Amino acid sequence: MSRAPEWRQDPLTERLVLIAPERAERPLHPGPACPFCEGHESETPPEVLAFRDVASALNCPGWRVRVVPNRYAAVRLELPSSPLCASERGAGGERSPGIGVAEVFIESPHHQTKFRNLPPEQIIHVLRAWRKRLRLRRDDPRIAYAQVFKNEGVTAGASVDHCHSQLIGISFVPSDVATETEHLEKLRIMAGVCPYCQWIEAGEHLDRFVTQSSDFAVFCPTAPRFPGELWLLPKQHGHAFHALNEESLPELAGIVVSALARIDRAFAEPAFNLIVKSAPYRRPGNFHWRIEILPRTTRIAGWELGTGIFINTMFPEDAARLLREAR
Amino acid sequence: MSRAPEWRQDPLTERLVLIAPERAERPLHPGPACPFCEGHESETPPEVLAFRDVASALNCPGWRVRVVPNRYAAVRLELPSSPLCASERGAGGERSPGIGVAEVFIESPHHQTKFRNLPPEQIIHVLRAWRKRLRLRRDDPRIAYAQVFKNEGVTAGASVDHCHSQLIGISFVPSDVATETEHLEKLRIMAGVCPYCQWIEAGEHLDRFVTQSSDFAVFCPTAPRFPGELWLLPKQHGHAFHALNEESLPELAGIVVSALARIDRAFAEPAFNLIVKSAPYRRPGNFHWRIEILPRTTRIAGWELGTGIFINTMFPEDAARLLREAR
Repeated sequence: MSRAPEWRQDPLTERLVLIAPERAERPLHPGPACPFCEGHESETPPEVLAFRDVASALNCPGWRVRVVPNRYAAVRLELPSSPLCASERGAGGERSPGIGVAEVFIESPHHQTKFRNLPPEQIIHVLRAWRKRLRLRRDDPRIAYAQVFKNEGVTAGASVDHCHSQLIGISFVPSDVATETEHLEKLRIMAGVCPYCQWIEAGEHLDRFVTQSSDFAVFCPTAPRFPGELWLLPKQHGHAFHALNEESLPELAGIVVSALARIDRAFAEPAFNLIVKSAPYRRPGNFHWRIEILPRTTRIAGWELGTGIFINTMFPEDAARLLREAR
Repeated sequence: MSRAPEWRQDPLTERLVLIAPERAERPLHPGPACPFCEGHESETPPEVLAFRDVASALNCPGWRVRVVPNRYAAVRLELPSSPLCASERGAGGERSPGIGVAEVFIESPHHQTKFRNLPPEQIIHVLRAWRKRLRLRRDDPRIAYAQVFKNEGVTAGASVDHCHSQLIGISFVPSDVATETEHLEKLRIMAGVCPYCQWIEAGEHLDRFVTQSSDFAVFCPTAPRFPGELWLLPKQHGHAFHALNEESLPELAGIVVSALARIDRAFAEPAFNLIVKSAPYRRPGNFHWRIEILPRTTRIAGWELGTGIFINTMFPEDAARLLREAR
C-alpha cells in the first residue's frame, strides 16, 4: 500500500500541492477490458450510489449511472485528523495529512467516450448523481469544500476514456475559491450587487454572451484561460449546484450539451475540462454557483507555470461571437 | 494585422490573463522547412543578437545562437502606454495594453530537438545569450520583470521542435513572484536568513537534495507540481541570473545538462519546461535566483484548473532519491 496522501505548502511561494502516490498506480488507458463497462462491476470498489433497474442487484449489471470510491484516491477520509493550520513545520515546508473524499461517477453502462453524445436522460442521471453526492458532504464536518469535475480527452487529463466524472472534497477551502467568495460577499455588503446577476441581467447585450435557456445563461468569462472557455450560470442567484431542483435538471442537461456542441463545432472537438463550482459549504458568502467548461485549445507552457499568468490567443468577445454562430 | 494584446483581470477571481491573438497565427510544427535552421534566416524577423563567425554577415548563415523578436509576440513594446493600475474598468473586468518584449533564442544552427544533446560549448552560448538579453532589460523603464523559459516537447507547449527558448518581459511584477519576493525580504529583516541558503548549507543532508557542483546545487522543491520537478540554485546568494559571471557559465551548463539527463533516465525522457526565475528588476528584495525544471510527467486536469492546487503523485523526497540514483 502506498504512503498516505499529504498536503505540502511552500511558505515562500505559498504554493499548496497535494502529494498522492496512490494515483501513480492508475493504469493509463486500460484497453479492451474497460473497468467502467457494465459487467465489470467487480473491477471497481463497491458502489456508493447507483441508479438501477428495479430488479438489479448491487454491484451487478442493470445500472444507468454508478458512483464508486476512487480506487486511486488523491485524498482519504481514514487518516489521522489534523487541520492544516496545526500542521508540521520544517525544512520540507508545511505538511498535513491529505484528508478528504474522492469518488468517480461512471456516466454510462456502455462504452461511450463523448459526454455530449450520451442520451439526454443519461445526462440527467449524471447531474442528479453529482447533486446527491455534493449534497451528502454538506453536513460532513470533515469536508469544507467539494468540487465535481470532468476530464474528457487525454490532453485534458483523462486516464480512462469511458465517460466519467469525479468528486473531490477536502477539509479546507482552496484560496482561489476563498478569494472569490470574499469579493462577492464584500460587493453584496458594500454595493448590494452580484456581478454575475448583472451579467445575466445584461444577457444578450453583453458582448461575452453566448446562449441562454429559460433558467440558465452561458458567457465567456472576463479573463478566460483558453480560447472558447465558457461559464454557465443559473439565472436565479444560488450558492450551490446541490440545491438545484429536480425540475431544473432536464433544462440544465440540454444547455450543457448545447454548450459542448458549440465548442466542438467552433474548435474542432477539443479535449475539455468541466468544473462545477459551488460555494464553500459552511461560509457560502454571496457565491453564485456555475459550471466552467475549459476547452484545452492551447497548451500550458513555461510562461504559465513560471508566472501563474495564462496566455490566451482569443479575446472573450471574439470567442463568444464564434460560439454564438456555432449553432 | 491582429488586434493588439491586452491584459484582462477578473476582479472576482483576481485571475490575470494575457490575450494575444497574434499567437494564434503560429504555424504548429512546421514541417521540412524549419524556419530556425541555418540558411532560413529570412523566415524570422531580423536578429537582435547573434554569436557569429567573424566573417559572417547579419541575418545570414555562420551563427551559433541567434536571438530574434518573436514573430507571434504575446506582448509588444510599441503600444500606447498605460500602467495596469490606471486601466479601464467595466463589465469586461480590468483591461490594459499588453506592453512588453518577447524574444526567441534559436539555440542551434542545425536541426536539433533535444537541448541536452547540444554540444557543451553550444549550451554555454545559450546561457550567455539569456544573460545578455535579461541584462539589457534591467535598465529599460518599461520592463519591471522578465523571465526566460524553454518548452521542450509538444506536451510542454512547444510549437516548433527545433531547440529554442523564449524571453518575455512585462511592465509589472506577476503576483506569484511579488509574493515570494516579499516573504524572502521579510525573512531577511526578521530573522536574517534566506531559506534557499539554508537548503544549500544542508546540502546532502536534506532529503530533497539531488546533486551539486562547486557553485550550484539541485533540489526537489518543498511543494513540487510534477514528479521530478527540480530547482537549481547558485550556492552564492544572488538576485539575478543576469549578474552571473562569464566564468560560471561552463559549470552551469554542465549541471543543467546533468539535471536533464537524470530526469530523462528516471522519467523516460519526458517533455519539460525550464524557467529562469530572477528577482523583479527594481525591487529585488532578498530574492535568490534559480532555474526550475518541470518534467511534464502528469497532466494538468479539472481539479488543478478548478482549485489552483496541483496533484502530484510523488513525494519530493522520493523523487530526489530516484534522481540521485539516476546518474
